Amino acid sequence: MRAEFINPFIHSLYKTFSTMLNCSVQRGQLSLKTSSKTSYEISGVIGLTGRAVGAVVLTLSKPVALKAASTMLLCDFSEINEDVIDAVGELANMVAGAAKAELEEYALVVSLPNVVTGKDHEIHFPSNVTPICIHFSSDWGPLALEVGLATIQNPSPEAATLTHHSEAVAAS
Amino acid sequence: MRAEFINPFIHSLYKTFSTMLNCSVQRGQLSLKTSSKTSYEISGVIGLTGRAVGAVVLTLSKPVALKAASTMLLCDFSEINEDVIDAVGELANMVAGAAKAELEEYALVVSLPNVVTGKDHEIHFPSNVTPICIHFSSDWGPLALEVGLATIQNPSPEAATLTHHSEAVAAS
Repeated sequence: MRAEFINPFIHSLYKTFSTMLNCSVQRGQLSLKTSSKTSYEISGVIGLTGRAVGAVVLTLSKPVALKAASTMLLCDFSEINEDVIDAVGELANMVAGAAKAELEEYALVVSLPNVVTGKDHEIHFPSNVTPICIHFSSDWGPLALEVGLATIQNPSPEAATLTHHSEAVAAS
Repeated sequence: MRAEFINPFIHSLYKTFSTMLNCSVQRGQLSLKTSSKTSYEISGVIGLTGRAVGAVVLTLSKPVALKAASTMLLCDFSEINEDVIDAVGELANMVAGAAKAELEEYALVVSLPNVVTGKDHEIHFPSNVTPICIHFSSDWGPLALEVGLATIQNPSPEAATLTHHSEAVAAS
């Protein structure tokens, strides 16, 4: 993955946490994600399309998710419920949305967030895209951001490979 | 969610399984997804953007995932490994890709697939989007497709809400 892709997401995470949540985060280790193990309990997943395609995963430890949701919704949460899940999706959306503003030349558009829960969940990227994983610590606990983006030559390569198939579908 | 969105995904799943995998599927119950429990062991998640935004989740029981990967890669898999994960991502990509061809007026673009594994994983949609879930049975076992799509008035609504925030990021 191109290095220029990653800084906008790091800035965006800092700013989202400080402006929206009044929570300062410290960047830890930056690594290529070789293991597919997603580190924490709850993850927001956002698809990105444009002149690059990919996905961003914001993965939060439970205390970070609960504190973030409590701050955003002015309500005290002690368990992961639908409100916390929505808040995590919205946080992932804000991080992706602000980063895309810095990556204007790629005209990125974000999909709806999906939130994945479950202590043992693992989120895998396609094996030809090695995502970059950045660990962060905060007063509330640890979190991490994974970004996998690939530039594309043709704006919709799958349109070409699926032409035959699409015709079959259209003819049905 | 608009009913017109769902048929292209159902057609697309039938066609993908019959043409790519030579496996016939039978449609079961179609339901609004009220519980967030994703039914099966391995799920491919694809973001969609365009004049509608959303996501598609193709969730497969383990035998279906193994048989599908074995058929696609001409190789016998007995455990979920990186090849099986890639194959499930590619299947989700094909289902989304063929469906978008039938939804031309929404100019949908698909993101990179993420594949979620873990026996207890749950994939949640934003609470303001109630996805439609369609169960299927096949000779290999059960599978399901969840589609959540929302039309948007402004092609990038998050651009507006994030303007202030993005400026803060850009100024950093």
